[in-house]
Amino acid sequence: MSIQTVTDLSRLCVHTITTRPWDIDTAVQQYAQAGVKGITVWRDALTGRDIRATGQMIRGQGLEIVSLCRGGFFPHTTAIGRQKAIDDNLLAIEEAALLGAPLVVLVCGADPAQPLEESRRQIYEGIAAVLPQAKAAGVKLAIEPMHPVYADTRSAINTLAQANDMAAAFNSPWLGVAVDVYHVWWDPALQEQIIRCGSNGHLLAFHICDWRVPTRHLLYDRGIMGEGCIPIRQIREWVESTGFTGFHEVEIFSDEYWAQDQHAFLQRIRDAYLAHG
Amino acid sequence: MSIQTVTDLSRLCVHTITTRPWDIDTAVQQYAQAGVKGITVWRDALTGRDIRATGQMIRGQGLEIVSLCRGGFFPHTTAIGRQKAIDDNLLAIEEAALLGAPLVVLVCGADPAQPLEESRRQIYEGIAAVLPQAKAAGVKLAIEPMHPVYADTRSAINTLAQANDMAAAFNSPWLGVAVDVYHVWWDPALQEQIIRCGSNGHLLAFHICDWRVPTRHLLYDRGIMGEGCIPIRQIREWVESTGFTGFHEVEIFSDEYWAQDQHAFLQRIRDAYLAHG
Repeated sequence: MSIQTVTDLSRLCVHTITTRPWDIDTAVQQYAQAGVKGITVWRDALTGRDIRATGQMIRGQGLEIVSLCRGGFFPHTTAIGRQKAIDDNLLAIEEAALLGAPLVVLVCGADPAQPLEESRRQIYEGIAAVLPQAKAAGVKLAIEPMHPVYADTRSAINTLAQANDMAAAFNSPWLGVAVDVYHVWWDPALQEQIIRCGSNGHLLAFHICDWRVPTRHLLYDRGIMGEGCIPIRQIREWVESTGFTGFHEVEIFSDEYWAQDQHAFLQRIRDAYLAHG
Repeated sequence: MSIQTVTDLSRLCVHTITTRPWDIDTAVQQYAQAGVKGITVWRDALTGRDIRATGQMIRGQGLEIVSLCRGGFFPHTTAIGRQKAIDDNLLAIEEAALLGAPLVVLVCGADPAQPLEESRRQIYEGIAAVLPQAKAAGVKLAIEPMHPVYADTRSAINTLAQANDMAAAFNSPWLGVAVDVYHVWWDPALQEQIIRCGSNGHLLAFHICDWRVPTRHLLYDRGIMGEGCIPIRQIREWVESTGFTGFHEVEIFSDEYWAQDQHAFLQRIRDAYLAHG
């Protein structure tokens, strides 16, 4: 079976972190001009700004706000640390509501000073503590399983199965999962777990980029679609086979690309999306 | 339940790669002098040597040869590449027999130019092609699941469950798995899968080191036991709860430690093993 590539830009979203050197005014203007239709806003882009007015500015440029990145980081060895994390997640939900973002993505966190099982328990408790506020604000939360290379400090939720299990445990329309090809492409259970979350309404977001061979930095060497080994189109096909009609969000952390001209980089992203998305 | 630390050096094995600057004569002499009881020999340490005589030299110093590292790397997009890999594995088995090593560890391989599923199929076929020779030579093979960060070029077998499934598919006393804490510590199914391979005779080797926080290099920044976040003692306890009485093999790749005095490094390994093993 041959898998079709995307045919237009109607589902293309870009994360503000992808073009980190740009402030949000520039990013919004350039994305809109390039034909990008959606934007996911990272919280650092909102620092010192009127969030409600920023949301209006974004929509005024014709962009759909797909999500706010990011909440999470619930585990800490101390109760004070855990409460701070909960407070910050409540703030993220409030920011999302002000911005008009329907979703907050959760990088759930891990504390290397304690067992992963304890971090997982604290993630559960953290989500339980903030989910009522998410519902009240009309903002969904998406657990993003993180690649196992980030199990030390970024997330104790490292497979889509774990994220799905967590979402199933809450069984709330306000909690689901985010599938980022970078984190899950290696997983032998990937197709099965995409079908699982897609068919029960828990698949809330789909992030794309590529895995470079070799990868030179654990955090900041993600590739543009097509320059690595992730079967992006195959994974998108699995995602969309479940009825998912959301955006394809380009989320690239790259010291190399951030050092380059961002206009040319955005053009490359657009071309690569059409060729490999 | 509190988990006991090791009480002596009787199960301590060191991989020659751990002290890479030393040639094998020096390594064997220094390991023996430090009270190390086992050695796993990397094939590069045998280059240009009489392998049978090297085995005798090692045993003459009172060290037990635990395994030969490493075979595997079966997947290739070309049939010629796959045949070369099979030939190399047959050679590794022959070398192990000459050395007197009862086990060859397999880093199974992955080719980023093809889907992981195809690489997995080729791994199965590669093992099938060499297993009769392993049996004839009296040498076991151990599938070592590799951390998902190595799914691009090193192995398409990234969880202990996958390795166990592969070993179960062959159901041979000559094929099992190697558990390296560095590769599997993040896995939520770890305990269950250790019990699984341990109770059916497939748990053939146990490797230790630590996961540094942060990890600065994807390949060459492994830590000494105790300087990272892996619950080594907990994992050893799971391994030994199955009746495993084999060696605890210290396998550390580290540009930092390789640049230091190897005598001091070996002493640190010994101390760390007693404190955190």
